[in-house]
Amino acid sequence: MPAAEHKRAVIFDTDIGIDDAMALLFLHYAPTIEIVGITTRFGNASVENTTNNALAVAEKFSISAAVYKGAAGPLGNRLGEGFPTHVHGENGMGNIELGKPSLQAESIDAAHAIVNLCKQHESLSIVAVGGLTNIAAALALDASIAQQLDDVVIMGGAFGYSGHRGNVSPVAEANIASDPLAADIVFSSEIQTSVVGLDVTHEVVFGKDFIQELAARAGEAGRFIREATDYYLNFYHSLSGEYQCPLHDSCAVAFLLRPDLFTTVQQPVRVVSEGIAIGQTIHSNDIRRYVSEEWDGIPKSNVCTAVDAAGVLDLYQSTLALAGE
Amino acid sequence: MPAAEHKRAVIFDTDIGIDDAMALLFLHYAPTIEIVGITTRFGNASVENTTNNALAVAEKFSISAAVYKGAAGPLGNRLGEGFPTHVHGENGMGNIELGKPSLQAESIDAAHAIVNLCKQHESLSIVAVGGLTNIAAALALDASIAQQLDDVVIMGGAFGYSGHRGNVSPVAEANIASDPLAADIVFSSEIQTSVVGLDVTHEVVFGKDFIQELAARAGEAGRFIREATDYYLNFYHSLSGEYQCPLHDSCAVAFLLRPDLFTTVQQPVRVVSEGIAIGQTIHSNDIRRYVSEEWDGIPKSNVCTAVDAAGVLDLYQSTLALAGE
Repeated sequence: MPAAEHKRAVIFDTDIGIDDAMALLFLHYAPTIEIVGITTRFGNASVENTTNNALAVAEKFSISAAVYKGAAGPLGNRLGEGFPTHVHGENGMGNIELGKPSLQAESIDAAHAIVNLCKQHESLSIVAVGGLTNIAAALALDASIAQQLDDVVIMGGAFGYSGHRGNVSPVAEANIASDPLAADIVFSSEIQTSVVGLDVTHEVVFGKDFIQELAARAGEAGRFIREATDYYLNFYHSLSGEYQCPLHDSCAVAFLLRPDLFTTVQQPVRVVSEGIAIGQTIHSNDIRRYVSEEWDGIPKSNVCTAVDAAGVLDLYQSTLALAGE
Repeated sequence: MPAAEHKRAVIFDTDIGIDDAMALLFLHYAPTIEIVGITTRFGNASVENTTNNALAVAEKFSISAAVYKGAAGPLGNRLGEGFPTHVHGENGMGNIELGKPSLQAESIDAAHAIVNLCKQHESLSIVAVGGLTNIAAALALDASIAQQLDDVVIMGGAFGYSGHRGNVSPVAEANIASDPLAADIVFSSEIQTSVVGLDVTHEVVFGKDFIQELAARAGEAGRFIREATDYYLNFYHSLSGEYQCPLHDSCAVAFLLRPDLFTTVQQPVRVVSEGIAIGQTIHSNDIRRYVSEEWDGIPKSNVCTAVDAAGVLDLYQSTLALAGE
């Protein structure tokens, strides 16, 4: 299979809950991608639950990547406490029964695995759909991963584009708010980061029609997503009165596969790590001469500001349809 | 003059620089307004300079209100240090020669004056176009001013509407950033506040044509504004390449006179008092169930989100034209 040599090697870093599982399947069935590792962390549920979820989903769908257990808590202060069981269920997967997987997590942890995988792959990307604790911890182990990684695509943050603000405070998004300090470390590092925030994920919404189409076209994967999203759609219904929810984490995969579906600005990003705005992502701009020098020397990230939502939804359906063939 | 009995009593609270002076003249020539006090503070320049500026402008234009010297520095941490001489000149008034006024400031300070004026006037508003140090200090002296005041209209802050963010950091506006803690105290108090931020003031821009028209129609006031704004327009030219600048402080006066020219949302407002987002104004919204409880119990402010810019500019011209009659 010489084509396989041209696949992009990707680590999927995740606090795997419902929409993370949707993103993992998206990545798995993308023909141009090889998942070379799955690193877990706390977030949508405890790291024990998310690691179990990652192993169960990998086993169920024959995803060959090794699973590495990561951070059980944040590097710095976080916003809130506990886990969002009202969004993702007690087990992080909408309370559907996953069973005990026969696969086991590797003996080394997520941060060390990231460092090792950087050495093993000439070209490597990370799709990070939880907070950034594992990547910040890997940077602390070996700062040269910043040069070794091609890029890190992050689902997280909210910059106020199209009126989209925070979802766990008026300004903070849940992934980033789960470890603001780690996120500030990653954005301030030399890693090439792209940020796919609520600005765009809240534009890419799906409802029951989308799920029915997946269930019809995407075989076992489609049926699994239908079952897992039932709890999730009920949560969004309780918020908005509609059975619609954003395709959060899969937008980061879509950015990796088709960056042309997104509009971006290139700006330094920092994360507020204290006070009432804790967890807020802020990008600077270079028009003004600021009093503050907090943004001096921070490398630029790609910040998504707009998205072709129909294009992302189509890409998701057409990629998952490969699972049904 | 029975009509005078129906004039609205207003305190003008100011770190009087160039656009503050434009706002003071706007208020002075508004037929429905009686300025019952001018309270000063540090900001665009030192409180010594701003007090001198207030006295000089009051004397020059026969504004009968007493001038009360206020805060020399912030209650809490501020963003940056020194004074913005590159915007407002060394004296806060574009370096035009104002001379030594023969008027003097009153012997009581601004915070005590606000408390006293609240007792003396059955109906009283404050137009606050600097930071909120004096009002926070008045609240500390006598919390019942919150009930005695009709409202406080504040030029300050930036909420991200129409893409307008901070002007002294990516998220902070200069007035609020000059004393974030004081602003947080005022917004968290029972005072009815209306916030006229960069979201709208950056939509209300004037250039040399506007100034020429004022100079032609508004007599001595118009000629004074032409002279004072020369330095200010040069600063904005250095930023943007155009001789155009926002009518910041006068927008707060316009809101007092004609709130129908503005679109608002009613939401609790808080101000970040620490970290990289210091000075940022944030409003909550009630759609989401936040993890954070920082906004619980905060009364709602009117937050301006859009403006009829042409309407404000016309109102300014037609009001100042009364000075030329």
